[in-house]
Amino acid sequence: MQYGDVFDMKTIGISIKIGDARAATLAKELIGWLKEQQREVCVDASLRDCCSEPCIDINAMAGHVNLMLVLGGDGTLLGVSRSFIGSDVPILGVNLGRLGFLTEAPVDNMFEAVSTILDGGGSIVRHFSLAAEVWRDGIKLGGGQAINDVVLQRNRHPRMIEFEMRVSGQFVFRVRADGLVLATPAGSTAYALSAGGPIVHQELDAILVAPVCPHTLSNRPIVLPSGDKITLRLTEVPAPAALNLDGQMHLELMQGDEIRIARSGTVSLAYLPGRNYFEVLRSKLHWTGRTDDNNAC
Amino acid sequence: MQYGDVFDMKTIGISIKIGDARAATLAKELIGWLKEQQREVCVDASLRDCCSEPCIDINAMAGHVNLMLVLGGDGTLLGVSRSFIGSDVPILGVNLGRLGFLTEAPVDNMFEAVSTILDGGGSIVRHFSLAAEVWRDGIKLGGGQAINDVVLQRNRHPRMIEFEMRVSGQFVFRVRADGLVLATPAGSTAYALSAGGPIVHQELDAILVAPVCPHTLSNRPIVLPSGDKITLRLTEVPAPAALNLDGQMHLELMQGDEIRIARSGTVSLAYLPGRNYFEVLRSKLHWTGRTDDNNAC
Amino acid sequence: MQYGDVFDMKTIGISIKIGDARAATLAKELIGWLKEQQREVCVDASLRDCCSEPCIDINAMAGHVNLMLVLGGDGTLLGVSRSFIGSDVPILGVNLGRLGFLTEAPVDNMFEAVSTILDGGGSIVRHFSLAAEVWRDGIKLGGGQAINDVVLQRNRHPRMIEFEMRVSGQFVFRVRADGLVLATPAGSTAYALSAGGPIVHQELDAILVAPVCPHTLSNRPIVLPSGDKITLRLTEVPAPAALNLDGQMHLELMQGDEIRIARSGTVSLAYLPGRNYFEVLRSKLHWTGRTDDNNAC
Amino acid sequence: MQYGDVFDMKTIGISIKIGDARAATLAKELIGWLKEQQREVCVDASLRDCCSEPCIDINAMAGHVNLMLVLGGDGTLLGVSRSFIGSDVPILGVNLGRLGFLTEAPVDNMFEAVSTILDGGGSIVRHFSLAAEVWRDGIKLGGGQAINDVVLQRNRHPRMIEFEMRVSGQFVFRVRADGLVLATPAGSTAYALSAGGPIVHQELDAILVAPVCPHTLSNRPIVLPSGDKITLRLTEVPAPAALNLDGQMHLELMQGDEIRIARSGTVSLAYLPGRNYFEVLRSKLHWTGRTDDNNAC
Repeated sequence: MQYGDVFDMKTIGISIKIGDARAATLAKELIGWLKEQQREVCVDASLRDCCSEPCIDINAMAGHVNLMLVLGGDGTLLGVSRSFIGSDVPILGVNLGRLGFLTEAPVDNMFEAVSTILDGGGSIVRHFSLAAEVWRDGIKLGGGQAINDVVLQRNRHPRMIEFEMRVSGQFVFRVRADGLVLATPAGSTAYALSAGGPIVHQELDAILVAPVCPHTLSNRPIVLPSGDKITLRLTEVPAPAALNLDGQMHLELMQGDEIRIARSGTVSLAYLPGRNYFEVLRSKLHWTGRTDDNNAC
Repeated sequence: MQYGDVFDMKTIGISIKIGDARAATLAKELIGWLKEQQREVCVDASLRDCCSEPCIDINAMAGHVNLMLVLGGDGTLLGVSRSFIGSDVPILGVNLGRLGFLTEAPVDNMFEAVSTILDGGGSIVRHFSLAAEVWRDGIKLGGGQAINDVVLQRNRHPRMIEFEMRVSGQFVFRVRADGLVLATPAGSTAYALSAGGPIVHQELDAILVAPVCPHTLSNRPIVLPSGDKITLRLTEVPAPAALNLDGQMHLELMQGDEIRIARSGTVSLAYLPGRNYFEVLRSKLHWTGRTDDNNAC
Repeated sequence: MQYGDVFDMKTIGISIKIGDARAATLAKELIGWLKEQQREVCVDASLRDCCSEPCIDINAMAGHVNLMLVLGGDGTLLGVSRSFIGSDVPILGVNLGRLGFLTEAPVDNMFEAVSTILDGGGSIVRHFSLAAEVWRDGIKLGGGQAINDVVLQRNRHPRMIEFEMRVSGQFVFRVRADGLVLATPAGSTAYALSAGGPIVHQELDAILVAPVCPHTLSNRPIVLPSGDKITLRLTEVPAPAALNLDGQMHLELMQGDEIRIARSGTVSLAYLPGRNYFEVLRSKLHWTGRTDDNNAC
Repeated sequence: MQYGDVFDMKTIGISIKIGDARAATLAKELIGWLKEQQREVCVDASLRDCCSEPCIDINAMAGHVNLMLVLGGDGTLLGVSRSFIGSDVPILGVNLGRLGFLTEAPVDNMFEAVSTILDGGGSIVRHFSLAAEVWRDGIKLGGGQAINDVVLQRNRHPRMIEFEMRVSGQFVFRVRADGLVLATPAGSTAYALSAGGPIVHQELDAILVAPVCPHTLSNRPIVLPSGDKITLRLTEVPAPAALNLDGQMHLELMQGDEIRIARSGTVSLAYLPGRNYFEVLRSKLHWTGRTDDNNAC
């Protein structure tokens, strides 16, 4: 999707990895550079103490900015992105570490990358999110959203938990396992991959369900249409279990609890021109083959 | 999809597992029963010598019948179904073995099952197919279609083959492996599962790509949007390799050959009322859990 | 190993699954039956309140009895067996659930099974154990033994832990994962199997090391000679991690801790005549094939 | 094992990768260098046309030389080594490609490496081999030995084969699969790894059995004591199958054939001082972790 003619990028929001001194320094340089170009800048709490720009709550930010810049790693980007679910504001990650799956712009290239996006270059990929709710005795206890994954897992106890899964009302299985990963395509290359799941292409409308260390060996990962409603019921939980959203938000779970997961709104991540999904995969997963490589072993 | 009001099931085609005496006997009973109901029946070559009904080439059958009945296992059904790709004629499999993923009706229940379908009961699932072409030196050598899977595999030689995959023009990887499975959702529970692939829900528009015994351990299965065009180029093939379509059609391959795979037309399989996709999975994969089972270990 | 002529089975110890009423009833029947045969019986704390036999601390039991009977499941047997490490006293498990890997005698057959063992029938398999120690800042904090497995795992925190493994002083890897299983052959069919490990034959002198959900996909399970000394050093632990012994004993771990694991003494499990290791595997793992089965699919 | 005082390395055998011009040139340099040191040199057929040294049949070579040098990759070394099974003559591989699992000496370092071994430096690892026999209707049709693996595989046919395995007379399973790998510890890092097997440490006396793409998902790899006799019986083979020894020798198989596999003699591979088994694993498998690496992701 091209967005150059859609957005007039007057106001730019900036957030950084909390407590990261290098990110703060870079952010200040970026703010100066943006203001030279007559852009307005606002920041969230992560930069409150570092600069004099207006500080806006991250959850309200989407209503104030035309472009959001995030300096950090994939984790920082996930945290900011969850506040932009349902908004069309593009988010550009400037990667302070190594190549990320989601953070697109290398820091060495920060000004050029931001410039490209401000000029309407690059492209946007809409990543859908998952919404999860925890219900106990018919009462909704809490919930949240995730860009990568919703992970049910045992906690503080060495024995497996047991739970049932239903998909759009149909019983799928009762399984004993360490847990279960429900991942978006973006999340399929994160924790779900370690749990044995496949790579789900970022443009496929699908939810990946991957049991973690299932007791029954034939309980393989399942890829479902993203419109399916997934319900988990905890049938045996020797000690409190947890529901983790993007590995960042946590809900405590007890035996009998019901978890409802469904597709939720999208976030719009900005990518630079020439970005190649498969090249990122090859690099992150150390696939050795290249077209011109005669020694692919 | 309900089809009861769409089709007027005047003419019924029948095909059986070739050389299966029991199937032939059952087919004759079925023919008698259908004619009592004033249906017209025609058969393909598999029944030519067993009955006096008009015999039609299987590849022309879709143009002559309103419902196709197949007596055999999943293999027989796959063979017949490939001749119905692109047609809306529903196909009902009567299973002579055990529960199949595709063959729906248990033989003990044959007349009732056919009756239900003739009365417009049950439902139809459209399964898309894959079309594969083999190109050598710019010339198309051959091709075919598959309902379950297109499998590239080494043949007659103990050493791995090496090939490159491109998806809609983008280079994905060069890999050394025993082969590669490209499966439809229907095929994800067939050979692809043995190769380590996930289960892809039958209603997801996706193609599963699963390397068979890849040399690079991080070459995990990938699930792609079904609209993607997949190209394989054989970069190192010590001895002729093979391209197998549904394990039933075979094309011989040499080093340098290019294989092009894309989504093709659908077939309409008829299922009985109450058919439950996940129940079939549970049964075939020996998932032990049931809602009321207290001993799921 | 035949042991009939080695042991004079004068004194029999009994332990049951704690709080299991059925086990208590069966134990009382068993005690009566053994006393009719002029055997002496002693019990551990699990039966203290149910009978008037002498009660001996389970950790001292091995010095007092010639045969130990355990009524429960594999978990109960593991707990009792850890107190018999280094002793030659045979232990017979009477299984109150379904077929266990370790608990040998079906409850329906309890008297006949015990009778057979008392008469010197059956055989003994010596299972070696693992000893684990936790060291912090050069001080040994604690330790314990395991018959099945020593499992390092993250706890109360959604992020992976990172640790290094050395084998007999040689650096093997630094890995990020949910944890690591170190299993004996007996333990290879327990949790390690869910984590992707192979089955290690019960008579092989080997330790299985299986990472749980490793971040690096090529970090495959490794089978080591049982004489190897294994050292783990926790290099990154965002929140307290745990070391679980047979899923029953727990040690809390912090970043920087070192864990030392080595082969320890054996326990002698009694098996009935005709017990077949592979038959147990087939049954537990639902391998369908049998010699006379024409439908192995 | 140190061998410096055991062997008086008077006569050196040399073999190269057949048809490799670079290897031939290096071999000639090596021959000149060895003769300057008053060593006697003999070659096998691979060097017959390149030099004037005595040419000895590779199968008789072990009786004539005190050290065998092989210039090539792991494949060349495997081929030569099979002719040295049961002999104590050390074999040193000079690797013309990249780091091999078995070929020890980098070519850049060839003279120094050979010098070290001639001086009694380095160490020897004895790798045991597997012997395989094919029996049909009670008659032994053929057989051979393998250093890495004996692989049963289907051939020229897209359908799985079905076979039974017995271990020391006990029935283990009947399975449908693409094939079965029986690997030594050395072979566990070759094809068996691609088939999903674990790494078996080179000093463990064990045989790894790994099904290739088994139909039944719980048919996991099994690690057996190396003294076990393994028998396979082919119960369903739609088209001729193959038994491949180290991927280099091939025996054709038919339905009903029986294959007997057992541990056979050892070969003595020479390794340079400081060779580290785990370092080789890390390098070949791209395990990223290093002791001093703060970015192990």
